[in-house]
Amino acid sequence: MTTSPSTRTHTEARIEADPDLPVVRITRDFAATPAQLLRAHTDPELFARWVGPDGMRTRIVHWDARSGGSWRYVAEGHGGEFGFHGCFHEIRPDRIVQTFTFDGEPDGVALETLVFEDLGDGRTRLHAQSLVDSFEGRDAWLRSGMEVGVDQGYAKLDALLGDVPA
Amino acid sequence: MTTSPSTRTHTEARIEADPDLPVVRITRDFAATPAQLLRAHTDPELFARWVGPDGMRTRIVHWDARSGGSWRYVAEGHGGEFGFHGCFHEIRPDRIVQTFTFDGEPDGVALETLVFEDLGDGRTRLHAQSLVDSFEGRDAWLRSGMEVGVDQGYAKLDALLGDVPA
Repeated sequence: MTTSPSTRTHTEARIEADPDLPVVRITRDFAATPAQLLRAHTDPELFARWVGPDGMRTRIVHWDARSGGSWRYVAEGHGGEFGFHGCFHEIRPDRIVQTFTFDGEPDGVALETLVFEDLGDGRTRLHAQSLVDSFEGRDAWLRSGMEVGVDQGYAKLDALLGDVPA
Repeated sequence: MTTSPSTRTHTEARIEADPDLPVVRITRDFAATPAQLLRAHTDPELFARWVGPDGMRTRIVHWDARSGGSWRYVAEGHGGEFGFHGCFHEIRPDRIVQTFTFDGEPDGVALETLVFEDLGDGRTRLHAQSLVDSFEGRDAWLRSGMEVGVDQGYAKLDALLGDVPA
């Protein structure tokens, strides 16, 4: 079965481990403009509606989405609470660079880069890169079942993009 | 010639490229407590007095040294101005994690981790790690003559540690 590119509104996320760098790359197309995707990643109310797996609620604790700002949220559900925090190194129309730490592993820090590639016709390819300082840590994260949260979160994002101003 | 450990006040910086990770590690001993080294890295007036090579002045543009804060400074001298900026992911007594970008290469971001290892007797070993997302970028930085700035900066830091409260 083939689907013409013009009728596809999104693709599933592709999740790749770099063979030579301690990096995970996630690529995903969205039926949205770069400006809509930027807003969905920087507006705390929108972000809380889609991030993470099904069955979890996201409570924003702190959110200052500007270059040099910082953020903290807690994911609640499945019988637990899981906190995350980081700083926004840079926010610009086509790119977000931020740090990311899970409270349960306080010495672990990922440097995340999100790039919004304008595909035209109201479609955007998201390129997300997470860089850490060990292959062991990167591979343990990949084995943790993280793709469930990625795919379920992005499906929620698909569903709410109609509410996001272009 | 041997020098007994108790009479050495510092060693030269050791600068190493990791063979398997896009990381540079710098190790340097100081005749200072961890608290003094932390202060020399977080107090903007102290930091401006030692960072960088001889012959450059450092002008702090913005400085908010707390977890989730950010910083910007400009190094002036040798006929030019060179801006740098980043955010502080975490500041705690034994560790600073921050991002680092040179304005002249705005898409390049390093994740820097500084660890202050207490050696006792008023001596501290600084472990500085810079993580980037390419070996080419890492190696170009190593070939740039960066060790001059590192060694001259830390020599200035040695000289002012007597003024830093313990």
